Amino acid sequence: MKFAPLLGALLAFYLIALSVRYSAGVNSLSDLPLIYQPHHDGSLLYVPNQNPQLGDMVTVRLRVPAQASVTTVVVRTIENGEMRLTPAHIQRVDGNDTWWEARLHLVNSVLPYRFRLDGGPTGVRWLNGAGLWNRTIPDDADFRLNTFPKPPTWVSDAVVYQIFPDRFATTGKYSTPVPDWAIAQKWDDAVVDVHDIVGRQFYGGDLDGVTEHLDHIQQLGANLIYLTPIFPGWSNHRYNASSFDEVDALLGGNEALTRLCSAAHARGIRVIGDFTSNHTGNTHEWFLRAAADPNAPEREYYYWKPDGSYVSWFDVPTLPKLNHTSHNLRHHLFEDPNGPVRKWIAAGLDGWRVDVANMTGREGTDDLNHAVARQLRHAATSVKADALVVAEHYFDYSPDLQGDGWHGVMNYSGFTFPVWSWLHDPANALPYLHGIVETPHLDGQLMAATMRDFNARVPWQNLVASFNLLDSHDTARIATLLDSDAALTEVAVTLMATLPSMPMIEYGDEIGMHGLTGEDGRRPMPWNRSLWHEDVLQAYQKLLTVRRTLDALRHGGLRWIYTGADAVVFLREATAQTVLVYVARTAHGTVHLPLDELAGWAASIGHPVHQAGKPQVVADSRGVDITSDGPAVSVWAW
Amino acid sequence: MKFAPLLGALLAFYLIALSVRYSAGVNSLSDLPLIYQPHHDGSLLYVPNQNPQLGDMVTVRLRVPAQASVTTVVVRTIENGEMRLTPAHIQRVDGNDTWWEARLHLVNSVLPYRFRLDGGPTGVRWLNGAGLWNRTIPDDADFRLNTFPKPPTWVSDAVVYQIFPDRFATTGKYSTPVPDWAIAQKWDDAVVDVHDIVGRQFYGGDLDGVTEHLDHIQQLGANLIYLTPIFPGWSNHRYNASSFDEVDALLGGNEALTRLCSAAHARGIRVIGDFTSNHTGNTHEWFLRAAADPNAPEREYYYWKPDGSYVSWFDVPTLPKLNHTSHNLRHHLFEDPNGPVRKWIAAGLDGWRVDVANMTGREGTDDLNHAVARQLRHAATSVKADALVVAEHYFDYSPDLQGDGWHGVMNYSGFTFPVWSWLHDPANALPYLHGIVETPHLDGQLMAATMRDFNARVPWQNLVASFNLLDSHDTARIATLLDSDAALTEVAVTLMATLPSMPMIEYGDEIGMHGLTGEDGRRPMPWNRSLWHEDVLQAYQKLLTVRRTLDALRHGGLRWIYTGADAVVFLREATAQTVLVYVARTAHGTVHLPLDELAGWAASIGHPVHQAGKPQVVADSRGVDITSDGPAVSVWAW
Repeated sequence: MKFAPLLGALLAFYLIALSVRYSAGVNSLSDLPLIYQPHHDGSLLYVPNQNPQLGDMVTVRLRVPAQASVTTVVVRTIENGEMRLTPAHIQRVDGNDTWWEARLHLVNSVLPYRFRLDGGPTGVRWLNGAGLWNRTIPDDADFRLNTFPKPPTWVSDAVVYQIFPDRFATTGKYSTPVPDWAIAQKWDDAVVDVHDIVGRQFYGGDLDGVTEHLDHIQQLGANLIYLTPIFPGWSNHRYNASSFDEVDALLGGNEALTRLCSAAHARGIRVIGDFTSNHTGNTHEWFLRAAADPNAPEREYYYWKPDGSYVSWFDVPTLPKLNHTSHNLRHHLFEDPNGPVRKWIAAGLDGWRVDVANMTGREGTDDLNHAVARQLRHAATSVKADALVVAEHYFDYSPDLQGDGWHGVMNYSGFTFPVWSWLHDPANALPYLHGIVETPHLDGQLMAATMRDFNARVPWQNLVASFNLLDSHDTARIATLLDSDAALTEVAVTLMATLPSMPMIEYGDEIGMHGLTGEDGRRPMPWNRSLWHEDVLQAYQKLLTVRRTLDALRHGGLRWIYTGADAVVFLREATAQTVLVYVARTAHGTVHLPLDELAGWAASIGHPVHQAGKPQVVADSRGVDITSDGPAVSVWAW
Repeated sequence: MKFAPLLGALLAFYLIALSVRYSAGVNSLSDLPLIYQPHHDGSLLYVPNQNPQLGDMVTVRLRVPAQASVTTVVVRTIENGEMRLTPAHIQRVDGNDTWWEARLHLVNSVLPYRFRLDGGPTGVRWLNGAGLWNRTIPDDADFRLNTFPKPPTWVSDAVVYQIFPDRFATTGKYSTPVPDWAIAQKWDDAVVDVHDIVGRQFYGGDLDGVTEHLDHIQQLGANLIYLTPIFPGWSNHRYNASSFDEVDALLGGNEALTRLCSAAHARGIRVIGDFTSNHTGNTHEWFLRAAADPNAPEREYYYWKPDGSYVSWFDVPTLPKLNHTSHNLRHHLFEDPNGPVRKWIAAGLDGWRVDVANMTGREGTDDLNHAVARQLRHAATSVKADALVVAEHYFDYSPDLQGDGWHGVMNYSGFTFPVWSWLHDPANALPYLHGIVETPHLDGQLMAATMRDFNARVPWQNLVASFNLLDSHDTARIATLLDSDAALTEVAVTLMATLPSMPMIEYGDEIGMHGLTGEDGRRPMPWNRSLWHEDVLQAYQKLLTVRRTLDALRHGGLRWIYTGADAVVFLREATAQTVLVYVARTAHGTVHLPLDELAGWAASIGHPVHQAGKPQVVADSRGVDITSDGPAVSVWAW
């Protein structure tokens, strides 16, 4: 029903719309150059209250370059399922930009919003997280406020270092006796990427080995260690846990974890573990009891089929799937102080990466994924208020990352694969998505559009609490993907270090370690420094220093201002600083950036904070022209 | 975790990808002309099993015109949160089209899927419901199978006639005494669209009046009457119900409803009511008790604020919002055989249109919308298995229409407003969305893209169970929007009658009734036939006959094959019939349709099933050129 009282009440808005003309582009993003497009994102610059509560009036701001010819701005929200329009007013004019501001009433747990822009030759446009549209679009990519507790604020300053404990470093103290399942290896033996062998090669890395090499991690510029599983399991990867009650004695046991956490914390380094919420090993004490006795209390922890067999991860029999419809299971996992999630945070961990988070709680008609995510996070943050919970997710994570569950994701879809697709040699297309498909080859416009499409669909704070990873223990190594091309490596690392989420480096990436697959890349870290690619290490160190030094890279918004096939340019903008990042994958023609929208840049053009390759940067009063004869990187700040 | 067993198991897929080159369009829909794009939708032609069950292997088919140069097709599904790739094989070659087929395992309640296409100069593309993409996109517009009970199959053959009972017809038997709230009107008095008057004008229409005019409805070609509310309320619209227990005596009471349903059913006409699940009137017996006594059992049926006031729809005090967190309320509404949802279906109704469905159950941190939708539908279909439940929804209905709740929606976003935006005179922009904003003016490409974007996000069966409406009692009338332009009316009615969902005609549209707003359009139906626009009536009758006659318009898929600024062309394709629909809003240059993809059309070109305006259709062996010097319509079938 829609009737007169509403019409009367809202008649004030009736006059906001001017004569309307649309451009004819069928895909409906605007023809206005990116740099002149109005911009909003969820960062502090645009949303001053980063932690709003139910009932708050929340200010949202919109930056409108003069060239966008906007005369009226209205914010559309969805409140209790119904549209509301809130007029915005001009807050200030700052150089080429007019800043509009509106106050939105946070009446629901989640408040979707978008901007309606009138004026100019093309008439009404809508701005949502995916960009500027000249027609009405569905709500998927609307900006979103929410009332949920936010991820810990320290994520903005975090740089993640992923360690596969069997392969990072060993003290040699715990690696004997060699367990039955294992094939003992010397530290410099090659990884053999053959099924039935790869999971059993045992190099004997341990947690004290990590503790001994904290200098390396700190010198790299990382401050958050992410350990892949440390509980015992009949494999070197330990994703098939036999128990969650003790740290694997082969890694040094509980005390080694305590020593590592203490030493790391003393240096300001946090440590998170890897929790397998989706399954256990078939050697897990719960599974053994459940399989032996249909009346065992643990029977309900798993899914049993009518024929007595059980559901397992991708039908791999060593990985029986956990059944989160069991309240007892969830109590034990999440609520019990001696259960894994709470116990190991109390023991020193600063949070969890969650394995196969995308499948957790999902089986047949059961979908408890969001409930499990909320409960796991609540358990973790109940023990340590600023604990972090980050989900593994290879696909469209947006339905699972709306702020109430996982804090963030490993951003494969919105970072890793777009970057791979832009930078790899199409003649050397490595498989991605666990080897199922080749990596496509994308131009820069499509890389940026892909990033924007995925990243737009999650709250800004959860994007910031995600990992920007160039690879992981589950993928090929970036050095292999880029064929050790030093210039392209600079480009890749620059993207990782300058985009909003936490950079995540798999151990060994920083010394140029190779790997054709995830398993092949799980090579022992060579501590003989003559085997290191020092230029790669320096690139990582330098770019992580740039990130640490520039506030806008850690707290700024993200505005794409140029996307061409071979070069892209974006801004990270904070209240008191702007950083401009230019990256090119190969030689390219002139990238012209007008100075009217980048006035603050003028004085810094001759003084990039960081540069690699040989970009030609020529400025005059109108703007800046950038060309390059090969891969290049330049970062400016003002 | 991703490791070797998976890699091994899926290695077969590793070789499917060929060398990959993407076109550079940043918006990433393909440059391939629409007519040569691969196509799939959820209709019978592409998904032979329209009612799959959990665990079924479901065949899905893809049509690939030769010009698309596709060499390999793989279907990507998301199962238990994880991607699976299923290779498709060629089922048959039919003229210019190759048909690919794959069998998908329906392992979850909802199975999203999309097609991965290799081959041709542009390399890998993805096809989802929104179209063809040259990069990876989020899942929102993926095709979807689901295990939920499907809407009644009769919706495919239904044509809806919306009646506002106070205004359609009167027997004069029940309209006295005039109630206190009412301003008695003679049948030919004008509607006065002024707040405080418009809701009180009482014309005395009744249900026996509807019964007396079933001939009119039948002659029009409608077979589903949708009655706006029939329970007593202190207004002519009755959306502020005072009770759900009896049909308003002013309408003839319960017996009049029984007489109407019996007479309608005898003619093969169904009747649905209008249920206000979001609120009652403040004169409702429940609300009166709840307001009078904080300890009344009905107190929990509403939302009370700390100051003793109550939450109401858009702060309109006469419409207190129902609180669906109350189990007693929901039991009474949905489970009680004497509650409104069940009782009135048992009494003869064939289902419900649900008022303010988008807000129902949503308030603050409460969001019980989906639970209420499921429960309401279950209640209705428990009494009558083929009952229909259609939701009012003005915005992005896709999150609320995934197959388990409402059967369909009033498709304002995916039909009404795109059509309005294409057809109205920009100099005469009427407000839409209850008067808040003007109607934008869109070219045909954007109209089609908007329809596709919204419609892609819901299961095909739920699109078919939705209403294609050109207007309603809540909007301006189409005759006013189009300024009674007969040629444009033909275009609008053609779109309504030939697109997949049920056509819905507001009483009076068929005789050219005007209305500047919803309220203004609630004019008494003039039964003096000299006041009718007979040409409009004939257009409605003719086009509804076309729909009734052509199976493909009722059961076919939907393939857009040409979208220009001023003309669009689409196909409705069923197993044994294809219908081609061409509509133009104004004069336009040549629309060329190649015959290689439309071979079956050749013999019918000279013999359109329906034509209006004067399109010039010239065929040769290569194809067909269509031009027009004004608005035009042509429908062919073969």
